[in-house]
Amino acid sequence: MSLLTRTEQALRAHFDAAAGMGAPPLLQAAMEHAVFSGGARVRPQLCLAVATACGDDAPELSDAAAVALELMHCASLVHDDMPAFDNAPLRRGRPSVHKAYGEPLALLAGDGLIVMAYRVMLRAGQRHPQRLMALLDNLTQGVGLPHGIVAGQAWECETTADLGQYQRAKTGALFVSSTCAGALSSGESAGAWAPLGTFLGEAYQVADDIRDVIGDAASLGKPAGQDALLARPSAAQVLGLDGAIQHFENLIDQASDSIPACASRDMLRALVQHESERLVPKAVCEGARLRRIQRGAVAPVTVR
Amino acid sequence: MSLLTRTEQALRAHFDAAAGMGAPPLLQAAMEHAVFSGGARVRPQLCLAVATACGDDAPELSDAAAVALELMHCASLVHDDMPAFDNAPLRRGRPSVHKAYGEPLALLAGDGLIVMAYRVMLRAGQRHPQRLMALLDNLTQGVGLPHGIVAGQAWECETTADLGQYQRAKTGALFVSSTCAGALSSGESAGAWAPLGTFLGEAYQVADDIRDVIGDAASLGKPAGQDALLARPSAAQVLGLDGAIQHFENLIDQASDSIPACASRDMLRALVQHESERLVPKAVCEGARLRRIQRGAVAPVTVR
Repeated sequence: MSLLTRTEQALRAHFDAAAGMGAPPLLQAAMEHAVFSGGARVRPQLCLAVATACGDDAPELSDAAAVALELMHCASLVHDDMPAFDNAPLRRGRPSVHKAYGEPLALLAGDGLIVMAYRVMLRAGQRHPQRLMALLDNLTQGVGLPHGIVAGQAWECETTADLGQYQRAKTGALFVSSTCAGALSSGESAGAWAPLGTFLGEAYQVADDIRDVIGDAASLGKPAGQDALLARPSAAQVLGLDGAIQHFENLIDQASDSIPACASRDMLRALVQHESERLVPKAVCEGARLRRIQRGAVAPVTVR
Repeated sequence: MSLLTRTEQALRAHFDAAAGMGAPPLLQAAMEHAVFSGGARVRPQLCLAVATACGDDAPELSDAAAVALELMHCASLVHDDMPAFDNAPLRRGRPSVHKAYGEPLALLAGDGLIVMAYRVMLRAGQRHPQRLMALLDNLTQGVGLPHGIVAGQAWECETTADLGQYQRAKTGALFVSSTCAGALSSGESAGAWAPLGTFLGEAYQVADDIRDVIGDAASLGKPAGQDALLARPSAAQVLGLDGAIQHFENLIDQASDSIPACASRDMLRALVQHESERLVPKAVCEGARLRRIQRGAVAPVTVR
């Protein structure tokens, strides 16, 4: 079974079980809309890939950890799309939750998904209390204060914010939680797997900045040009487009290089390369490289 | 030390520790505004009172449980006050969080407080993993799907909602979590303490409905007449004002009667009576009783 298939099956099963019986139907529908809308499932797949590399001796726990990470991610998207932030009518090409269900239910759907993430973990982790506590702590660090994705989003509300700090929190934190969760759910320590999450998370955020400049709404599934419009910190603004693309390629290389020696190293590297291509197609990177060569910024022999 | 003093000290200590170093300053300030604004601290005091009745042999755990309950309550107030729901400019007589810090930070402050509640528990519970897991499960049930306060708030978005179901979820769920948390943090089973939370929670919601009709903004700390304005389910609408007051008194009596036999029974009953007077002053209840007697609805010998 592919990691994506495993993720989707786990999401469906855990969502239904954790929602329980008798919840308000529209709230549950809004939460389903947020979760089951064709997301790439990068974070849960990353978690499961690392779990596989670490032996995955408690797959029910790694499944739950993967699901919890995705639920947190979806919660953040629901709230970020609301008029108070991006005011985005679309997400993944479909109406955003507040467009489909209204602002009150979007607000509550986000809250409900955060709590559901914990519920999923608690239901699955009873047989492994020590791992469960480590996983809950890891998840909480990825989302909350001081450096989780909620803090990352809040840096947009400050008058001054360091771009690196903003990006590490806004996107990187949950990527780090994802790689670490894979290790922790298999009873391994997380430290060796944190750099993969860090580099990949930063690459992901830089890619988002790049696509916000070059992309169109169809490929993004949301409006382009939002960073400049909303005056948000952006790698493309700071480094220029070609500089941001070069930075992205470096981060992908660092992510690949950081993968610890293990039987699954090739599988993980393939996953990183697949993500890289999906985020910023190689043709875009080649175009930027050619422009840098024309400007004399790099020697033409440099091959990635 | 009074339960209120113990609550305030625990809140301050746990908030600072769980926020950590380096969070976005405005987000942290918005969260502080939400938490340290003169709340009555009913839920944490209830938790600590039951913990005391159950021996309170792990006070660091009952403190954390009490704090987590209050953080969840504050999170729900922040989000409920936002324009998508009550659009309340005031809370406890001060500007609501979105009025003081803007909608984006109010949205994130609520999210941050939910996650902080878990963080507080996780930091305090490492030495008692079994109790911690039970407490986290109990907290999650009080907040999330299917019957927690997030679900309760969402019933306002449905076209049809059972008043009892709405009230049990919107307010009762976190009261039940509060009494149960006191028992669980002391290693006792929670079942015997759930009815106290149930009755008190329903009384609290009915009192809120009553005060929405009779109150003024000064004593409520928020605008009156919101239920009728927003067409929300309300005991005062369904039962009439005097009927709602009678219902409130019955619930307070049931709450008192439900307290299990223990050395702290008198202390707990005094706490219930103190809350009762704070919620709906005895003079208001007496006035309603006199009107019922005048209408021949009750015999004049009935004394509470």
